[in-house]
Amino acid sequence: MNYMDSIAYHKKYKGKIGTELKSPINNKSDLSLAYTPGVAKVSLELAKNNNKASELSLKSNTIAVLSDGSAVLGLGNIGAYGAIPVMEGKAALFKKFGGVDAFPICVNTQNNEEIIALAKNIAPVFGGINLEDIEAPRCFEIERRLIKELGIPVMHDDQHGTAVVVLAALINAIKVVKKDKDVKIMINGAGAAGTAVCDLLLEYGFKNIVICDSKGAISKKRNGLNEEKKRLVKVTNKNNEVGDIHQIIKNKDVFIGVSRGNLIDENDIKNMNSEAIIFAMANPVPEIMPDVAKAAGALIVATGRSDFDNQINNVLAFPGIFRGALDNKVKRITNKMLIQAAINLSKLVKKPTAEKIIPNPFEKGIVKAVSSAIK
Amino acid sequence: MNYMDSIAYHKKYKGKIGTELKSPINNKSDLSLAYTPGVAKVSLELAKNNNKASELSLKSNTIAVLSDGSAVLGLGNIGAYGAIPVMEGKAALFKKFGGVDAFPICVNTQNNEEIIALAKNIAPVFGGINLEDIEAPRCFEIERRLIKELGIPVMHDDQHGTAVVVLAALINAIKVVKKDKDVKIMINGAGAAGTAVCDLLLEYGFKNIVICDSKGAISKKRNGLNEEKKRLVKVTNKNNEVGDIHQIIKNKDVFIGVSRGNLIDENDIKNMNSEAIIFAMANPVPEIMPDVAKAAGALIVATGRSDFDNQINNVLAFPGIFRGALDNKVKRITNKMLIQAAINLSKLVKKPTAEKIIPNPFEKGIVKAVSSAIK
Repeated sequence: MNYMDSIAYHKKYKGKIGTELKSPINNKSDLSLAYTPGVAKVSLELAKNNNKASELSLKSNTIAVLSDGSAVLGLGNIGAYGAIPVMEGKAALFKKFGGVDAFPICVNTQNNEEIIALAKNIAPVFGGINLEDIEAPRCFEIERRLIKELGIPVMHDDQHGTAVVVLAALINAIKVVKKDKDVKIMINGAGAAGTAVCDLLLEYGFKNIVICDSKGAISKKRNGLNEEKKRLVKVTNKNNEVGDIHQIIKNKDVFIGVSRGNLIDENDIKNMNSEAIIFAMANPVPEIMPDVAKAAGALIVATGRSDFDNQINNVLAFPGIFRGALDNKVKRITNKMLIQAAINLSKLVKKPTAEKIIPNPFEKGIVKAVSSAIK
Repeated sequence: MNYMDSIAYHKKYKGKIGTELKSPINNKSDLSLAYTPGVAKVSLELAKNNNKASELSLKSNTIAVLSDGSAVLGLGNIGAYGAIPVMEGKAALFKKFGGVDAFPICVNTQNNEEIIALAKNIAPVFGGINLEDIEAPRCFEIERRLIKELGIPVMHDDQHGTAVVVLAALINAIKVVKKDKDVKIMINGAGAAGTAVCDLLLEYGFKNIVICDSKGAISKKRNGLNEEKKRLVKVTNKNNEVGDIHQIIKNKDVFIGVSRGNLIDENDIKNMNSEAIIFAMANPVPEIMPDVAKAAGALIVATGRSDFDNQINNVLAFPGIFRGALDNKVKRITNKMLIQAAINLSKLVKKPTAEKIIPNPFEKGIVKAVSSAIK
């Protein structure tokens, strides 16, 4: 793909989403129902009973895709304007795949209290909030607080959407290589995605996980860990492994990269156990390119990109998750629901192979498989 | 109209607006252009040059319809939830008539500094902000500050949208009764709409205006006036008239009501000059019902409602104003532009009559007439 094609695409359409009318406004009679004077009655109804907004307004099917641009794709902290094309794209995918009306809110502040207050202040029209591309550990606090303080489903997709798709892909990948939940897994990246992937894999039943950040394995021997990482120490790295990415990858069955591009090479792959599984999900440049990993002996390679096989992309999860949350009037999305969503998603691939461990986003049944688990 | 019909309408469609895709996402290739990996290039471009958002994202055609629900229609302070149906309706009308993608932001705070900070923080995706149904005098500060502190067009529609349509209607009304700019005008209501109507009529050239608030005529003899009203004293009520609405309406040619329902009666109409012009624009219940006013001798009666003749409704102005602002890349909407918009709008009625001083919203050419003035 030529990156300039993407600029041209965005220029041609002047963006990717707009609004549409859900109800007819074709004459004076419609106008008096949709707007003044009839709308006054609806306004008084909602003022009296806020919950009716989910029946009588766009809140029924609308969510916010909210980002502060502090961790956009693998590009880092590029701010609210840099976030726009990604959040708008996400909103487009919500509509395309899930029929969810999503609107991008790209906030020009990276202060947690300001973001939390803002999200609460704009919440009336939204039936849910998809947090997106907010850096760790700030994202944990924002998500936790909004889940607690708002009565609508709130999910940080970089965490939980990613976790669902990784789990679905891993369920099928270990089937292909005939391994089980005892596989040795390393996760590189202990930010939003890495943390949530780790939690969901553990809750599903995987036992042997070592998670690394930029300073290497997170272990009991590390000092100065933040609260999230202290929590991870208790549930991962049972053998207290120490070392950097190149040391930790040795003798692992599974490498899950949610970090930066070009971090590992063919020697790292050769040091892994046989029939290695590589999920190199940094965007836009993966931790290792698929052809390089395969040439070095990896059996299954997945990335986050649309232009390679085995795209582990959140688009398989988030439209269905919020579709289910809206349809089933779910107030809070739980890990139990997410694990079921991953299982349902994995089952869509009838006979998993090395080249096909996960459906592609355009296959039928994906949203239904996921949304039916969110209840 | 039965108000329950409006509830049923909103229930049936579950609201009035949703999102739509402006660009194709039909296969993996589209996905790699609209989303990852291609979108990364667009994100980096916008991070480097924020202005490109108007070319490469939804900002090109998207505005916010922002309200705190403190002055919704004529219903008063009914809060963010009460505001939703009106803001959503407005967003629908923006799309229907102006092709503008508008999204309702109903904020759960009535603190000016919080609203200003919030608007600035969410501004990146918006090409303009239509402020709506915010009470006076708070609305003046919010509008003034956002115009000053944001680089996109910001307009409080209750003020300026109303003023444009009132001026357009009045230009035609005085033609019908063969009067001129010397007509004696009273404006009842010195909030957002009354103030802006007064300013625009003065700037157009009307000379004799007395403006009343709930305590009666605003004059030099009044104490404790707020800053806006002190300013109005200097430019209105040259004869220093004092008294309540019933006293001030005597011997006026024009009554412009932007206040509350059922404030004047047939005696008030009888006390006006002959061939009186009545704009009774309180919503949903006008200051006087058209049949009552006409029976008492008024020659021209207009209201804000869709279900009567001569609807002086902002829908004639706001879609075109923001259409023009977006198309012509206007940073700031001026009174000069608004006067030209009113003149253009008035000219759409080729032969004004008592029953037809203003086009109805479904006539052709309205948006073009207005938008061509905003440049």
